[in-house]
Amino acid sequence: MAQRIPAREGDPVDAIETPALVVDLDALEHNLDAMAAAVAASGLRLRPHAKSHKCPDIARLQLARGAVGVCCQKTDEAIAFVDAGVPDVLLTNEVVAPAKLRRLADAARRSRVGLLVDSDAGARAASAAAADAGSVLDAYVEVDVGAGRCGVAPGDAGALARRVASLPGLRYAGLHCYHGAAQHLRTPQARAQAIASARERVLAAKAAVTAAGLDTTVVTGAGTGTWPLERASGVWNELQPGSYVFMDADYGRNALGPGDVAFAQALFVLASVTSTPAPGRAVCDAGLKALTFDSGLPVVHGRDGVAYERASDEHGVLATDAAARPLALGERVWLIPGHCDPTANLYDWIVGLRGDRVAAVWPVAARGALA
Amino acid sequence: MAQRIPAREGDPVDAIETPALVVDLDALEHNLDAMAAAVAASGLRLRPHAKSHKCPDIARLQLARGAVGVCCQKTDEAIAFVDAGVPDVLLTNEVVAPAKLRRLADAARRSRVGLLVDSDAGARAASAAAADAGSVLDAYVEVDVGAGRCGVAPGDAGALARRVASLPGLRYAGLHCYHGAAQHLRTPQARAQAIASARERVLAAKAAVTAAGLDTTVVTGAGTGTWPLERASGVWNELQPGSYVFMDADYGRNALGPGDVAFAQALFVLASVTSTPAPGRAVCDAGLKALTFDSGLPVVHGRDGVAYERASDEHGVLATDAAARPLALGERVWLIPGHCDPTANLYDWIVGLRGDRVAAVWPVAARGALA
Repeated sequence: MAQRIPAREGDPVDAIETPALVVDLDALEHNLDAMAAAVAASGLRLRPHAKSHKCPDIARLQLARGAVGVCCQKTDEAIAFVDAGVPDVLLTNEVVAPAKLRRLADAARRSRVGLLVDSDAGARAASAAAADAGSVLDAYVEVDVGAGRCGVAPGDAGALARRVASLPGLRYAGLHCYHGAAQHLRTPQARAQAIASARERVLAAKAAVTAAGLDTTVVTGAGTGTWPLERASGVWNELQPGSYVFMDADYGRNALGPGDVAFAQALFVLASVTSTPAPGRAVCDAGLKALTFDSGLPVVHGRDGVAYERASDEHGVLATDAAARPLALGERVWLIPGHCDPTANLYDWIVGLRGDRVAAVWPVAARGALA
Repeated sequence: MAQRIPAREGDPVDAIETPALVVDLDALEHNLDAMAAAVAASGLRLRPHAKSHKCPDIARLQLARGAVGVCCQKTDEAIAFVDAGVPDVLLTNEVVAPAKLRRLADAARRSRVGLLVDSDAGARAASAAAADAGSVLDAYVEVDVGAGRCGVAPGDAGALARRVASLPGLRYAGLHCYHGAAQHLRTPQARAQAIASARERVLAAKAAVTAAGLDTTVVTGAGTGTWPLERASGVWNELQPGSYVFMDADYGRNALGPGDVAFAQALFVLASVTSTPAPGRAVCDAGLKALTFDSGLPVVHGRDGVAYERASDEHGVLATDAAARPLALGERVWLIPGHCDPTANLYDWIVGLRGDRVAAVWPVAARGALA
């Protein structure tokens, strides 16, 4: 069931079988360097989110630039990175299924492994698995700082932290405070307001933990849309951006503020024109199974006057302005995905380009790691 | 990179690791039987579209019920079904890349293989590959019958059919006339109108082919939304429905007319509740990587008063009405995907349930077959 390897090192771009997930390595390295430098200068910890790339080769580039470890979002994704030798993996999600907790607790004998808790039952289940495995899991209390997804209210963080600290097999590792809903607010002002409000909630949660007699050494969170705000907040001390390595059309619509870094678009779906049935219309081989559309249509890169108009399972319909050069049969089309994370999950391989040559073909080791 | 096998035969439902792609085998067989009977009664050929399931085990059930072969949508998908022993595979898409045509022409030495052409260049490329391989490809002229995607205008079908018939390695096999845009028109009247208009275009294309001195033995097309209309048209003689095996929330929104068959919802994403952070809100483990959202949100099945409200990469936020029983941590949630085809492509395994026991675990052999 593995996907065909779309290219070999040394191949020219024209030899890549399409559709393929292609990364411009110069742009990727620019993004990795820029984030590493920006976080290092602040003295904070950088723990990039590996759910964006699911690729140990990219995680190694992040670790080599000072990342303390990676974040993952599912049990088998975390285990893929432990198996790849990443020494410190934080699963930024609640896990309550005993079979998954057993796998995580087993992985915690090989690497440092953390997870989130937002319930007494969740803490007890994780504790039981770790105690059985003879390992220790880092348990972070998740606080709802405004996203309205998982997490306890700030005032409840103290009692849950105490509970975690009392259970065998768990180490109270800190607070997980991620405001997902703030990442794609379009203006710097709206993002600043959301993170200012989240900051108040983090302070309340920290105070509750202190009142419960515990120290909070790590407050972890932030994403590609807001990380300069958490960095400057004085309360977060570990940042988790993920998408910055690749970027996508949706993040491209965020207006940048004074503290933001302009990351380069490094990720593309390379497609080919398979039909030119009528003037102004062409069809390419990348549709609903080659890109995800949860954050809108892909954007055509490097070809003025050409737009990706609609998709079916394996077709993308491209519209060409009357003034633009018509698309030719077989022509390559570079698409910027609407949303990088779920799009990367559709591919088994990342093709790394240096200029117009394939310089790397990396396995997306945690592709499909849903459990 | 393969996904963990989520269950074993004989397991109870509660042992399935989530999220998982689950098929109710009774419902699946009902759908397979109903379509086979409806098409057999008309004397037409049934060539179900395998892009919906990508699963040779399901293709075998279709062939056992009289299907003449399957349709596929990509080269490597077609080859997966040839490799699985399907004797007749029609790739309902244009293929122009020489490397892909080489693979198809090679597969055509093992099974009957067809593809679509809508250009002279496409026909020549396919001919060259087949001639090189010493095989014969069935070439269908694609006609745009209203979808505005690929295909020649009806009046141009004759010249292209003649061209196909003149080229070595190609056999002019008929006309491909699929009106994708009609499948999800919500009312029977709107669908009937669209297919009536498509029928006029098919007749014009057939006339053009006849005028060019060729016979058209097969007119192939239709989908789950419109197949009773093509069946009754007197012009189509091969039907290609795909989604009927599974069904999805989007097809569930089509109002049925007098000639339609009510297919059962056979496909689910089985998810689990991982967080119950606030009254009326729960979070499950199936998000943007477990379902696709191009046709809207999934629908919660069998749990009145619970709705899937929004998704992030690996979270689904569920809202519970005040009157409904609250969701419990670890509780299983049955989700009807918005769109079955791209959702099935996210999984390596289909778990087949008979009642509340796992009776089959089938590989999604063509998962990720994008090339």
